[in-house]
Amino acid sequence: MTEVKKIAHVAILVEDIDDALKFWRDALGLELGHVEEVPSQGAAVAFLPLGDTEVELVQPLGEDSGLAKYLAQRGGGMHHLCFEVEDISAKLEELKAAGVRLINEEASTLEDGRQIAFIHPKSTGGVLVELVQY
Amino acid sequence: MTEVKKIAHVAILVEDIDDALKFWRDALGLELGHVEEVPSQGAAVAFLPLGDTEVELVQPLGEDSGLAKYLAQRGGGMHHLCFEVEDISAKLEELKAAGVRLINEEASTLEDGRQIAFIHPKSTGGVLVELVQY
Repeated sequence: MTEVKKIAHVAILVEDIDDALKFWRDALGLELGHVEEVPSQGAAVAFLPLGDTEVELVQPLGEDSGLAKYLAQRGGGMHHLCFEVEDISAKLEELKAAGVRLINEEASTLEDGRQIAFIHPKSTGGVLVELVQY
Repeated sequence: MTEVKKIAHVAILVEDIDDALKFWRDALGLELGHVEEVPSQGAAVAFLPLGDTEVELVQPLGEDSGLAKYLAQRGGGMHHLCFEVEDISAKLEELKAAGVRLINEEASTLEDGRQIAFIHPKSTGGVLVELVQY
C-alpha cells in the first residue's frame, strides 16, 4: 500500500486572515510563514508551519466560490485535513478499489508542480480529506 | 511567549471506531497505534501516529456525554485540534491576558500526568482548540 508520509496541513476556513492571525499568531503564538493568493482555489492562504506539518488559514476571495458559500452557510472552523502521500495516482487507485468515493478521480497538477485530489466526506465519516504529492 | 511545540493530535469524532478504521487504516493506510478507553472523557480513542503528530478517532461511550450529544446533533467529522505547549499554565495566562475565552481557566491533570485545557471556539474562529503539556 502506498505510504502516507505525514499530515501536510490542517486547513482552517476564516473570514479574514488578518483578523484570524490575532488569535493564531498573536495570542496562541504560532509563527506566520507567509501569505499568498491561490487564484485556482479562490482563496488567500496564510501558512503557519509547526513541527513537520502546518496550519493553513484559508480566506475565500469573492463571494461566489464554493469556499465562500461554505463559509456563509457553516461559519469558520476546521475545513479539511491534507495528507502527503508518496504516489498520489497509486493511492487514488487503491482508494477506488476499496470503494471510497472521490471528489477528484484523478489528481490535478498545480502551478508549482504539486499534485492534489480530494476524498469525499461521505466516505471518511464527515472529514474532507485532501491528498498531496510534492 | 510560551512556545507551541507541535500539533499533538487532530481529533475526529466517529460513531464507531471499528467502522471508522475501515477508511482511516484499511483504505487510506494510516497505522493504528492502539485503542483505549478514556473514562474521564466518556470516550474510546484510537491513536494513529503519523510523523510528529497523530490522528485520534474519538468514539463517545454512552449517550449522555457532551461528545455523544455533539455527535448526535452535528454528525462525525473533525472535532478538535490539540497543540503541545511547553508550559500550559503560562500559556493560559497569556491567552487570558489577550482576552481569549477559555473553557478551562486552569489545566486539568489526567491520570497519566498530562495536563490539558480547552480554548473556546468563540475565540478561535470556530475551532475547538486543546492545549496539552506532557
